[in-house]
Amino acid sequence: MAKKSFNPVSLIRKKRDGELLSRDEISYLVKQYTNDELPDYQMSAFLMAAFLNDLNKDEAAALTEAMLHSGKVLDLSDIPGKKVDKHSTGGVGDKLSLILAPIVASYDVPVPMISGRGLGHTGGTLDKMESIPGFNVDLTLDQYRQILSKCKMVMSGQTEDIAPADKRLYALRDVTATVESIPLIAGSIMSKKLAEGIDSLVLDVKFGSGAFMKTQEEARELAETLVNIGEDFGKQTVAYLTNMEEPIGYKIGNWLEVEEAMDSLQGQGPADVMEVTHMLSGTMIMLGGKAETVDEGIEMSKKAVSNGQAFDKWLQLTAAQGGDTDVLKDPSQYNHADYQFTVEAPQSGYITAMDAYKIGIASLELGAGRKTKEDDIDPAAGIELKRKTGAKIKKGETLAVGFTNNKELQETAIDILHDAFSIKEESPEQQPMITHRVDKKGIHKISDTH
Amino acid sequence: MAKKSFNPVSLIRKKRDGELLSRDEISYLVKQYTNDELPDYQMSAFLMAAFLNDLNKDEAAALTEAMLHSGKVLDLSDIPGKKVDKHSTGGVGDKLSLILAPIVASYDVPVPMISGRGLGHTGGTLDKMESIPGFNVDLTLDQYRQILSKCKMVMSGQTEDIAPADKRLYALRDVTATVESIPLIAGSIMSKKLAEGIDSLVLDVKFGSGAFMKTQEEARELAETLVNIGEDFGKQTVAYLTNMEEPIGYKIGNWLEVEEAMDSLQGQGPADVMEVTHMLSGTMIMLGGKAETVDEGIEMSKKAVSNGQAFDKWLQLTAAQGGDTDVLKDPSQYNHADYQFTVEAPQSGYITAMDAYKIGIASLELGAGRKTKEDDIDPAAGIELKRKTGAKIKKGETLAVGFTNNKELQETAIDILHDAFSIKEESPEQQPMITHRVDKKGIHKISDTH
Repeated sequence: MAKKSFNPVSLIRKKRDGELLSRDEISYLVKQYTNDELPDYQMSAFLMAAFLNDLNKDEAAALTEAMLHSGKVLDLSDIPGKKVDKHSTGGVGDKLSLILAPIVASYDVPVPMISGRGLGHTGGTLDKMESIPGFNVDLTLDQYRQILSKCKMVMSGQTEDIAPADKRLYALRDVTATVESIPLIAGSIMSKKLAEGIDSLVLDVKFGSGAFMKTQEEARELAETLVNIGEDFGKQTVAYLTNMEEPIGYKIGNWLEVEEAMDSLQGQGPADVMEVTHMLSGTMIMLGGKAETVDEGIEMSKKAVSNGQAFDKWLQLTAAQGGDTDVLKDPSQYNHADYQFTVEAPQSGYITAMDAYKIGIASLELGAGRKTKEDDIDPAAGIELKRKTGAKIKKGETLAVGFTNNKELQETAIDILHDAFSIKEESPEQQPMITHRVDKKGIHKISDTH
Repeated sequence: MAKKSFNPVSLIRKKRDGELLSRDEISYLVKQYTNDELPDYQMSAFLMAAFLNDLNKDEAAALTEAMLHSGKVLDLSDIPGKKVDKHSTGGVGDKLSLILAPIVASYDVPVPMISGRGLGHTGGTLDKMESIPGFNVDLTLDQYRQILSKCKMVMSGQTEDIAPADKRLYALRDVTATVESIPLIAGSIMSKKLAEGIDSLVLDVKFGSGAFMKTQEEARELAETLVNIGEDFGKQTVAYLTNMEEPIGYKIGNWLEVEEAMDSLQGQGPADVMEVTHMLSGTMIMLGGKAETVDEGIEMSKKAVSNGQAFDKWLQLTAAQGGDTDVLKDPSQYNHADYQFTVEAPQSGYITAMDAYKIGIASLELGAGRKTKEDDIDPAAGIELKRKTGAKIKKGETLAVGFTNNKELQETAIDILHDAFSIKEESPEQQPMITHRVDKKGIHKISDTH
C-alpha cells in the first residue's frame, strides 16, 4: 500500500484545519499505526480531529481500505454462489441474524457471517450463539470454509487476522471519546465485512432510543456512508433504516433470544421481528441471485419458514458447529434462570412508549451483558416483555418478566424497567418498523404494506 | 488540589461536545497526567478537542493554575520590592529583554527573569545570553535568589521544578499539532511566569509575519487571555500589541543581538528597538512602583540609558553570572564568524516589505537556531540588515550581510534572504510599532507619539 512517507504532525494538522486527506495519507497513518510506528497519542489526536471536522466519503472509503488491508482478506471464490451477509448496527432484542441467515442459506445463497460480542446495552450475536450448549464460534479459517461450504452458512467470531487495525483503533476510540463518529463507525463496520470475502451486503441501520444512532437523520447519514463505501469496493450494498424505539420482539437476553428465534423459524415469530427479517432476507435472496426482486425474495423467505427448510438449515448449522440441537427443538431441556420476577402496570391505559435503551440496560444489569470486556455473561438472564407499545393494559397487569441467576441483581433492574414504560390514557400513533431503503441509487421511502 | 475523581473519557467527551469543564475537572486531568495516571493518548485527544472547541477564560485560568501547581512556585517575598517581569511571544531580532531588564533593575525594581531557548524561526533569550563567553544560565534556585537579591535582576533557564506539567504538555502538543491554540499558549506562558513569584507582568504580544500570531486580531485575543489569567491570579498584567512584520532592529542571531543590545544600552539603539523597549520598561518601572504613570516610567527608562546606569547594571549582572564583561565593552575581542556574504538589491526602489519569518529562517539556516532540540547553535551566525522597510535603495546596494562558521549553509540562506525583500517603486505606508495596550480595563489604542 502506502509507499510514500509523510510527516504525521502535518497530517494531523491538515485534518485539524478541516482539509481533506488523500488516500495515500490515510493509508500511511493506518499502516504506521498498525506497525507500531505511529504512537497512540498521535493517532488519538488525529481521531479527535477527524471526529470534530469529519471525514468525507472518499476519506471514509480510504480509511476502510487501509483497515481492510491491515489483515487478511478472505477469498471465498472457490465456494460457489454469490456470498451475501447482513450487518446490524445493533439494537435491543435483535436476534434477526439467527433467523435470516438460515432462511437465505436454505436457498443455497452462502452467508459467511462473522459477528461480534455485545458491549453496552446491546447484545452480540456471538453471545447468543454461545448460549446454545456446545455451540463453538471460535473457528479456524479452515473450519470456517468447511462449514460454509457444507451448510452454505457459518457463524464465527472475528479472528486476529481480520482487520487488526480496526481492532486497535476501536480500542483507542473507546478510551478517547471518539466512538460516535459516522465515518469512523462506517469504516470499522465495512473493513470487517469486506474482509469476509462477500459479494454483497445488507445493512440494518437502526435508529431510536435503543440504537447507537438516536435519530433517523443520523441513521440515514450512516446508511449512506456505508452504502457508499460498499459500492466503492464493488460490492452491492443495500441498507434499511429501521425503528429501535422499543425492543424488537418480546425477548431480550441471550438464550431468551435464541428461543424467540427458534419460534420465529417455526412460524411463531412476533410481527415486528418477521417484518424486518423478511425484508432483510428477501433482499439477501435477491442479491444472491435467487430472486428477481425484493418482493419475490420476501415471498421465498416466508415460504422457507412455513415449509420448515429454514429451521432445518439452522439445525444442520448448529450440529456442524458442535451445538446441542435437542435443546433447540425442545427448550424445556434448557437450564433456565433460577430467579424470576414480574413488573406490573402501575395504572391502566395504553403503553405509549417503552424505552429500548433502558430495557437493554436492565437486561445487562441482570447478567445478560458485560459492563467491562472481562465480565462473564449469564446466558439465561434477560427479560421477556408481555405487552408492547400500543397495548391497552389494566393496572396490575404483568408488563414484563425478568430472569437472572443472581438474585442480588434484581433490584436495580426492576427500578430501571419500571422507568422504561410510559403509560397514558390515549393510544399512541403506530410507528413504522422500516422507514427507508438506501442503495446506490439513493434513498427510498418504504410503504407500510410490507 | 483536585481531590475529586472523574472519568477521563467523560471529560474528553464533554470538551468534544463543546461543554465547559470545571476547575476541578481541568485540575484532575492535569494532575493525573503529571502523575502518569492519565496516558498520553487521552491527553492528546483532550488537547485536540480543546484546540478545536476552545477553552473559555475560566478554563484557561484553571489550566494555568493546574500547571502552575504541578511544580514549585517561588516565594520571593524576602526580596524587597515589587517583582516585575516581561514576556514576549517571540519574534525575529527580539533582544529587548537584554535591554529592558537592566533598565528596570537599575531603579531597584527586581526582575526575576526565567527564559527559554529558541525553536523554529525565533531566537531564545537563553541562547543569546550563552553567546557571551562564560555566561551561565543554569542556576540553582539558591544562585537565582542570591543574584536577584544582589543585582535586582537575574536571567535564568527554566528548572525542572517549574511547571513540569507545562513541559510535558508542551512536548505532547508539539507532536500532536495542538500548539497554536490561544488558551493553551496562554496557559503555558502564564504557568511559567506565575511560578517565578512575580507581582506584575508586562507582555509583548507580537503579530505579523515573524510572530506566532499572524494577525492583530489573534494577538489581541491572546493578549486579552493572558491579561485575564494574570489578573485572575491577582497580578497586575499589562500587554502591548507590537508589530513583527519585519525583524526588530538590524541584527538577528545570538551574539549579533547581544552586540545590538549593548549598543542600545549605550544610547546607540535603533529607533524601533528603543520605542518598544521604553514602552515596556516604562510600564515595568510604573508597575514596580517607581513611577506614577507609564509616561513617567518611559522618561526614567530613557534617562537610565543616557546616564549609563542601565549598561552598568548589565555589566554587574554579567559578572555575577560568570560572563566576560570585556567582550561586552569591546566587541572586537569576540570570535566573529569565519564567513560572511552580502545580499544586494536586484533593482532600485523602495523596500516595501521584508518578511521577518523568512529572515528568521535564513538566520536559522546559517546556524543561529535549532531545527531539532538536539542541534548545536553557532553563536556567531546570523544576519545584519543594512536597510529596513521604507528605505530608498539603489540597485546593487547591500541590503544585508550574513554570518556563519559553516560556509556550506550559505546557499540556502542567500536564496531565502533574496526572497524576503519586496522592492517597489512607490514608498510604503509606515506601520506603527505599538498599536494597542491591553490591561484589566480593556484595550486602548496607542497614539503614534511614543
